[in-house]
Amino acid sequence: MKSWLSSANATGCDFPVQNLPFGVFSQDGEDPRCGVAIGDRVLDLAALERDRLIETGGTSVFEADALKPFMERGPDVWERVRARLTNLLRDSGDTALQKTADRYLIPLTDVTLHLPFKVSEYTDFYAGKQHAFNVGTMFRGPENALPPNWLHIPIGYNGRASSVVVSGTDFHRPNGQLKAPDADAPTFGPSRRLDIELEMGAVVGTGNPMGTPVTVAEADRMIFGYVLLNDWSARDIQAWEYQPLGPFQGKAFCTTISPWVVTRAALEPFRTTTPEREKPLLPYLAEPTPMLYDIALEVGLTPADSNEEAVLSRTNYSSMYYSAAQQLAHHTSSGCPMRAGDLLGSGTISGDTPDSYGSLLEMSWGGKTPITLPNGETRSFLEDGDRVTLRGHAAGDGYRIGFGDCTGTVLPAIKKD
Amino acid sequence: MKSWLSSANATGCDFPVQNLPFGVFSQDGEDPRCGVAIGDRVLDLAALERDRLIETGGTSVFEADALKPFMERGPDVWERVRARLTNLLRDSGDTALQKTADRYLIPLTDVTLHLPFKVSEYTDFYAGKQHAFNVGTMFRGPENALPPNWLHIPIGYNGRASSVVVSGTDFHRPNGQLKAPDADAPTFGPSRRLDIELEMGAVVGTGNPMGTPVTVAEADRMIFGYVLLNDWSARDIQAWEYQPLGPFQGKAFCTTISPWVVTRAALEPFRTTTPEREKPLLPYLAEPTPMLYDIALEVGLTPADSNEEAVLSRTNYSSMYYSAAQQLAHHTSSGCPMRAGDLLGSGTISGDTPDSYGSLLEMSWGGKTPITLPNGETRSFLEDGDRVTLRGHAAGDGYRIGFGDCTGTVLPAIKKD
Repeated sequence: MKSWLSSANATGCDFPVQNLPFGVFSQDGEDPRCGVAIGDRVLDLAALERDRLIETGGTSVFEADALKPFMERGPDVWERVRARLTNLLRDSGDTALQKTADRYLIPLTDVTLHLPFKVSEYTDFYAGKQHAFNVGTMFRGPENALPPNWLHIPIGYNGRASSVVVSGTDFHRPNGQLKAPDADAPTFGPSRRLDIELEMGAVVGTGNPMGTPVTVAEADRMIFGYVLLNDWSARDIQAWEYQPLGPFQGKAFCTTISPWVVTRAALEPFRTTTPEREKPLLPYLAEPTPMLYDIALEVGLTPADSNEEAVLSRTNYSSMYYSAAQQLAHHTSSGCPMRAGDLLGSGTISGDTPDSYGSLLEMSWGGKTPITLPNGETRSFLEDGDRVTLRGHAAGDGYRIGFGDCTGTVLPAIKKD
Repeated sequence: MKSWLSSANATGCDFPVQNLPFGVFSQDGEDPRCGVAIGDRVLDLAALERDRLIETGGTSVFEADALKPFMERGPDVWERVRARLTNLLRDSGDTALQKTADRYLIPLTDVTLHLPFKVSEYTDFYAGKQHAFNVGTMFRGPENALPPNWLHIPIGYNGRASSVVVSGTDFHRPNGQLKAPDADAPTFGPSRRLDIELEMGAVVGTGNPMGTPVTVAEADRMIFGYVLLNDWSARDIQAWEYQPLGPFQGKAFCTTISPWVVTRAALEPFRTTTPEREKPLLPYLAEPTPMLYDIALEVGLTPADSNEEAVLSRTNYSSMYYSAAQQLAHHTSSGCPMRAGDLLGSGTISGDTPDSYGSLLEMSWGGKTPITLPNGETRSFLEDGDRVTLRGHAAGDGYRIGFGDCTGTVLPAIKKD
């Protein structure tokens, strides 16, 4: 299937007519509103809805600064809107329809992209086995690398929703308590082991009432879509604070997501199964159908004052041990209510080799084997001015479902007077 | 100071004119709106504001189903409104003013109380030293009881905001993964070690921008008020899941808070210092003035089909090692942005003796020494039908600042088809 918009059909375009990811944009200082990316344009959904060219089963949902009203309409409306958008944007030969739709397209270069949804709560999981094994090996040795619960529970922790930002938002290197293993007492200062975590984020579109767990199949249907997610991490703050209550300030200063939510519908052709179970899962975690996706991922780093990006890592989301649907089902297992706008981080996605690892901690093996960049600099952890970009796409037959860049730059730590 | 409303002056009344706690109520199916508790009445703030008898520096804030709009006005407006309410409700001899105010009073027995604020995010700390020592002793022995960071960091973890409910909301015993230490694999089923945690909750009234940490003094001024908080906990789910990422589903099914937010202003006379530091704190955690409060607390348990409540524990908030202001300052130390409606749990408040412990885990020492109730039943953990009520007050000269009951009843676990 092609679009009548030629830029949508270009090789390597992230946003062909098969994708249609949702986001929030503004133009010329106007209020943010909802849109869909197509080729090098954004389709103004608020205007389309106002002119009654798209129908969402009730009052306006797209004249909003976040996708929540639309997401809360539920999967049937998501599908109906996707069908209508496909109809407007595919090359059907209906030139009248094409002319109509064309009036609602705005060049992406003319708009500002915003956080696509208000993050209700953010949960970060730990479903990458290679990552868990690598980190566990560094801290506890290879024989005790995986925690005993790991093959039974998609373990996770509650992250900090208020520090989730959209791609392009720079942030300051965090300060915090730091303590070397041999030091008597901690000191306070800028993190010296600032890291990235390459993750996918699942966006919960509809919730469940308190006290009513959902199955994996029900959980899958609650997921509106996926984003790229960089869970920036201060390893030294984390190391000193995290026992016994888990990561806290070492993860609370910034989490970056890509600006477009790629819908579950767009990813359907790329479903794949989770790897073979090494231990049987309890029935409530059983997957009736494939719930992971074949999504190629990469991490790029551009040092300050450089135009040359180094691709540090290439890996694939399909290597995860648990799917987002399993994580979401587990999240409700106690009766915990989920809500539209909840964000579930997959956990760091690492392949089998250092050039496929999803964190600098792993790539530099805790700083023991620094990476050399094309400009000759080395990195164990991030330096001020470093810009990191995550990219991802699912490769279809003659098209790709892309996520758009997920980027952030490290600013120097703030000194308090 | 007395009120012209006699019920506010009664001995043991939680809501004298010195208190004036804020909450959200509804009557006869009308929309919820903001009010203040006084004696056995609630003062209708929305109606007062509509009739221009109270002024909050802009558009309406009390015709709302949550305190957020009012809280966001900031400390100066909080103080001004408190002064006006004191003026309306104290016994000044101004009978005309008294008659006016009387028109806005509704019997508490006629209203339904709602969650007083939408919980933006919920963070649970661990600042009770006796509790940390008790739990640590049970799991690791007395010599390793306190984690190494405990005397340096007010450690905490992000909890689940969506499962915070107002007093009187019953909840189902959670299901989850359970694994006995000697079992090969986990099973899935209802928690058998359901517990309470007696805590205070601090309510953040104004936030800080991302990347801008606040001092302890600034943090104190950001706190709007305090509530009682029962952090219901499934110890068996928690024990199996919590390493290395911290508590998750074992704490995600229900957290109950009292319906009235007692303001920081009402608690001013009861300020007290945190205990002597056993190790020096880093400067960013230094308290310029006393930041804890002398608040007497108790835990009552009423078994199903019983009218007899057993008081299981009596303790005091003043025993905590860290104050909420210290916790909030630490929370921002990485640059983490806080927002109006953030809720900070103090951590379980346990005194030195079993009759002052804040959890059944401690009272029954992990089930080894069950408690005997007045009706002859015993408890190591909660049974279905148990109703638990937390109460708290600060004792003034001839009055008390009470919090109102913080109650919940355990319903049987849900069986999924």
